[in-house]
Amino acid sequence: MPRDPRFDILFEPVRIGPKLARNRFFQVPHASGMTNAAPHVRAAFREAKAEGGWAVVSTGACSVDPSSDDSPFPFATLWDQADVRSHALMTEAAHRHGSLAAVELWHGGAAAVNRTTRHAPLSPSGIPWMATHVPFMSSARPRVMDAADIRNLIRWHAEAAIKAEEAGFDILYVYAGMGYLPYQFLLSDYNQRTDSYGGSVRNRVRLVEQLIDAVREATKGRCAVALRISMQELRARPSDVAPTEAHEVIGYLKDAPDLFDVKMDYSAFDCAASRYTAEGSHEAVVDFLKSVTDKPVVGVGRFTSPDTMVSMIRRGVLDFIGGARPSIADPFLPKKIEEGRVEDIRECIGCNLCISSWHDGVWVRCTQNPTAGEEWRRGWHPEIVRRDASGSVLVVGAGPSGLEAALTLARRGHEVALADRARDFGGRLRWESRLPGLGQWHRVVDYRMGQLRKLPNVSLYPESELSAADVRDFGADHVVIATGARWLPHLCGTNELPSGPLVAPRVYTPDDLAAGAVPEGPVAVFDYDNYYLGSAVAESLAHLGVTYITTAGAAAAWGFMTNEQPLVHQSFAAKGIALRTLEVVTGFDGEEVRLAQIFSGEERRIAARSLVIVGYRAGGSALHAALAEDAAPRRLHLTGDANAPGAIVHAIYQGHKTARELGVEKVVVRRDAPFAARDFQLPEAAE
Amino acid sequence: MPRDPRFDILFEPVRIGPKLARNRFFQVPHASGMTNAAPHVRAAFREAKAEGGWAVVSTGACSVDPSSDDSPFPFATLWDQADVRSHALMTEAAHRHGSLAAVELWHGGAAAVNRTTRHAPLSPSGIPWMATHVPFMSSARPRVMDAADIRNLIRWHAEAAIKAEEAGFDILYVYAGMGYLPYQFLLSDYNQRTDSYGGSVRNRVRLVEQLIDAVREATKGRCAVALRISMQELRARPSDVAPTEAHEVIGYLKDAPDLFDVKMDYSAFDCAASRYTAEGSHEAVVDFLKSVTDKPVVGVGRFTSPDTMVSMIRRGVLDFIGGARPSIADPFLPKKIEEGRVEDIRECIGCNLCISSWHDGVWVRCTQNPTAGEEWRRGWHPEIVRRDASGSVLVVGAGPSGLEAALTLARRGHEVALADRARDFGGRLRWESRLPGLGQWHRVVDYRMGQLRKLPNVSLYPESELSAADVRDFGADHVVIATGARWLPHLCGTNELPSGPLVAPRVYTPDDLAAGAVPEGPVAVFDYDNYYLGSAVAESLAHLGVTYITTAGAAAAWGFMTNEQPLVHQSFAAKGIALRTLEVVTGFDGEEVRLAQIFSGEERRIAARSLVIVGYRAGGSALHAALAEDAAPRRLHLTGDANAPGAIVHAIYQGHKTARELGVEKVVVRRDAPFAARDFQLPEAAE
Repeated sequence: MPRDPRFDILFEPVRIGPKLARNRFFQVPHASGMTNAAPHVRAAFREAKAEGGWAVVSTGACSVDPSSDDSPFPFATLWDQADVRSHALMTEAAHRHGSLAAVELWHGGAAAVNRTTRHAPLSPSGIPWMATHVPFMSSARPRVMDAADIRNLIRWHAEAAIKAEEAGFDILYVYAGMGYLPYQFLLSDYNQRTDSYGGSVRNRVRLVEQLIDAVREATKGRCAVALRISMQELRARPSDVAPTEAHEVIGYLKDAPDLFDVKMDYSAFDCAASRYTAEGSHEAVVDFLKSVTDKPVVGVGRFTSPDTMVSMIRRGVLDFIGGARPSIADPFLPKKIEEGRVEDIRECIGCNLCISSWHDGVWVRCTQNPTAGEEWRRGWHPEIVRRDASGSVLVVGAGPSGLEAALTLARRGHEVALADRARDFGGRLRWESRLPGLGQWHRVVDYRMGQLRKLPNVSLYPESELSAADVRDFGADHVVIATGARWLPHLCGTNELPSGPLVAPRVYTPDDLAAGAVPEGPVAVFDYDNYYLGSAVAESLAHLGVTYITTAGAAAAWGFMTNEQPLVHQSFAAKGIALRTLEVVTGFDGEEVRLAQIFSGEERRIAARSLVIVGYRAGGSALHAALAEDAAPRRLHLTGDANAPGAIVHAIYQGHKTARELGVEKVVVRRDAPFAARDFQLPEAAE
Repeated sequence: MPRDPRFDILFEPVRIGPKLARNRFFQVPHASGMTNAAPHVRAAFREAKAEGGWAVVSTGACSVDPSSDDSPFPFATLWDQADVRSHALMTEAAHRHGSLAAVELWHGGAAAVNRTTRHAPLSPSGIPWMATHVPFMSSARPRVMDAADIRNLIRWHAEAAIKAEEAGFDILYVYAGMGYLPYQFLLSDYNQRTDSYGGSVRNRVRLVEQLIDAVREATKGRCAVALRISMQELRARPSDVAPTEAHEVIGYLKDAPDLFDVKMDYSAFDCAASRYTAEGSHEAVVDFLKSVTDKPVVGVGRFTSPDTMVSMIRRGVLDFIGGARPSIADPFLPKKIEEGRVEDIRECIGCNLCISSWHDGVWVRCTQNPTAGEEWRRGWHPEIVRRDASGSVLVVGAGPSGLEAALTLARRGHEVALADRARDFGGRLRWESRLPGLGQWHRVVDYRMGQLRKLPNVSLYPESELSAADVRDFGADHVVIATGARWLPHLCGTNELPSGPLVAPRVYTPDDLAAGAVPEGPVAVFDYDNYYLGSAVAESLAHLGVTYITTAGAAAAWGFMTNEQPLVHQSFAAKGIALRTLEVVTGFDGEEVRLAQIFSGEERRIAARSLVIVGYRAGGSALHAALAEDAAPRRLHLTGDANAPGAIVHAIYQGHKTARELGVEKVVVRRDAPFAARDFQLPEAAE
């Protein structure tokens, strides 16, 4: 199908200083979690995007000096020649597909507390970067930079720029956002200096200007220089000479970089979960840029709709459609628009599992794209599945893992039958995506159903509850069981382990609610799962009067990782949901919930007519057990939540893996390692 | 000075199966944080202990298979030949000094959620390992192991054992503790199997027996086999055939391993902070071992007193004095006892910064020993400082950093003058070590004062407040300013940043309390520092009636990292301290504290007559600023909290670094990297 001509504008080339981007799709810097420790994994992860049509692919934060060490959080480095070689893998990969490669030069300042290099953190004025999230905390407060420190910072950027050009980068970022060092100079909260770098906006901008100049001079104008800058706080502050401090800052800098990359300040707004925030949410903060500067502007907003993208360009908000999350969920998003295959886009659902990976300190993971991070290690291409099979497979269960398994098996060439006892496919997402804020999660089902319906070798069997005899009679070469997990009405001990089931009136699990049970208010929701579901259930029942109880220190505690948690608290406040933390439920009699403080055991009681327990999920499958009695293990496969209960991301990954590996004799997994080992001296030799 | 003969028993050789340990000092497995990614750093860190006289030095947890991946938490691997080479560096280092090398073979089961390898976690019965600490959380619940999984687990141990012997290890551990997989088989909470591995204690022990046998057979009895086992929960449970399940378990296993390494189950008890727990705290749980088995037994308990050690041996509790923390604080502890230099021991203070490093996912750090982790990278030996200098240095400020700087400068050969305005040296520790539970922290001062008093080239100047003119008149070649930081009466915003000072009656900082101020009760303590001090202050004022308020989700939130936090909550409950979390103080008028929920902004009020703010600490030094006006920068050094405020660990590290680098032209820092890079194929070659 030819491309709709109204999308043509997205494929115009755009100049960025000395470089030319082949279209308007720009994978902005975002963490991959892979660091320089896994250079081949990282290069292949970025390469998929270049191949998929992104005109620019960027690194994540790349430290210019050991005084900016964010460990244990993932970051790249440009400190030595081993690093140059490591990054060159990525730039070569980008260039192979006609894309430009960008590097985000980064100094964390007070936000990087140098847990490994153990340098004293740097800051404009000694103001620490503090946190309520324990892993972000440190007692290491920053030193106040003196004039020599500022000269060093500029020099480190220049030296890193030289290494970056050597590594093959086309675009060099100066990064003045998200609480990092140049940002700290911009904001008066951090910058209380009395020298030429502090005080007026003009002075506070000076360092950023000098960094841009230093990077440009270091590479003699051969590379493009981009400025990444957070605008949210600056835009909220009045200026004497411009509508806001943001306007004033951009006014001073309007001719300095070759490109502006604009964003928000706080992760929960910058990389906002779809649960509380719609596509394009940055616009109100970044819409003024193009009225102040003639340089091209890139911005993000979890864009997956080509119409929204066109609107952003036509209305003069952006020149480039920035993508981070959508580029992970579908590296081939640009190509699919280009080729008129918009309905094939695997749209980001905004669950933010990707950013959780950075918070977790590990490689990026994606709910929608199970191949993310596996391109090199397991050889999984995000679009191409080798057609290497022909037998028949019966997939039982059409939740996330069953859908993914069926799709991937069909792409491999199998004759696939997909059966589910329900009329509508989607498993747990049929109910969960109807909970407050979770509507976009249904894209997991929509994408896979859309693809499955296109394939001639797939048969769908809704309303088909299968017995072991049915499965045997079906006679498929392979059987994949993906029947999901069950929520159990179990309490947990103060040792954090699930204990036995609670037997009492009006005790519900999420499965009961999904099946249509309606609790009597007031309701207590006890959450020791601590991801999204407990709080989403609480929100859905708020009209009955809800007290939410958790073992953790905050509502939806793990939702900190996905940038949801602060917004859950705001939502609770708006909906009148009472919050109790650091407690376990020890009993319930239909009228009163007994609670114990999880550390001290102190007892408390609250009134409630119903109790919803969101805690322990068990996998397992009676069907699988019955079939295992006589089926050859190599023909019978348990996957997804039935095998090991998890979030949707785990279910889809398992379903994909089961499908890729089904019938394969030997699975090869490569192990990556950095280049540096070849360069350093052994201690014997050095001494 | 000759050794006291009553300590001779500590230096008897002891047989461990086919191996002979030269004395009773046994560095049990503990995390180094360095992983296989930094093999030279790790080997040098372990080597210091071998050189210091530990008869056995051990690795930390060493995964036997990619299905046990604890990332982002540090762990070693024994998966391939690159790993063998990596570990060989450590075994060679141990053998150079006559020590045995032990490896802790490890499978984490449900506790290792495989965030990087992305395997489904394994477990006996699908019971998850859950957590209230966000970074420990995951939605990835384990699969139930089938018979093939159990066979694989045993095979992985055998294969890892072969690699371990190849790497040069003498002692191979099977690890059945701390919630990891073999432990999960031992405990009925996790093990609900109905096959021959579940049900009775006899059945639950079976897997551990088979693992021990497999490891022994794999190495044909050439290596010693140790069992590390947690006893706390088992000892609390009755048995039909023995005093407790612990007795029954050890009864079945009494002849199986060559050594028992016994410990507690939960980190807060196993690696207990001195704040709430005394030396030798494991005894009540592990004292029965030697009544059941004839095999040698090693146990820990933060032993630093040779008399306690001798008592443990003489009373038949232990055969080996296990050390983890004390071996980090002073790798030369055995040698100092051996040489009759007991007063030179740098005693562990039980602050648990070391274990916090593991929780942080980074290299181990130690308050008492700033050289830990720097042996290879910076060439810092824990005992030997090269005598390479002769000039005079004036150190102003005798807190932790000043003491450490003075000591290290004196060891380098400088003429050192150490001045402090107070009569007693120790800086912040003079007051802090008098707070509840913090007495042992004064060892930081005691050790350094003891060493300084022995050195002829050190002069101490108490009660000496120095002006810039005084310092100039003193005429030292170098001046080190280590005058510490100040706590400020600043509030913080809901953006977690310190804002302005609170001006109101009866507002106190820790400095005010240290200077003798006595608040009027009831007292509100507002803690946005979130380490130990806020809660310790609350405890010290509990008799006045205290409400403790924190921005975080728990009291002493960062104290989770040091295993203190659960015990802080217990202490608060015992002392009647009220707890408020996730709030900031927005105002105080001497009668009422105004609060806001940190995420939603909801307002609350509580009554209080005094407010103590433990939040923002500022460094800086007026003396340094005055001297900087005309001193050559290379002669003037700002260090410790005055340079960059931190915990004691940061102050001592800075003081040490300043002293090591003072006057050095070029500081060389080596960068480590794993071996694997030399082994894998580049993608071009592999395809």
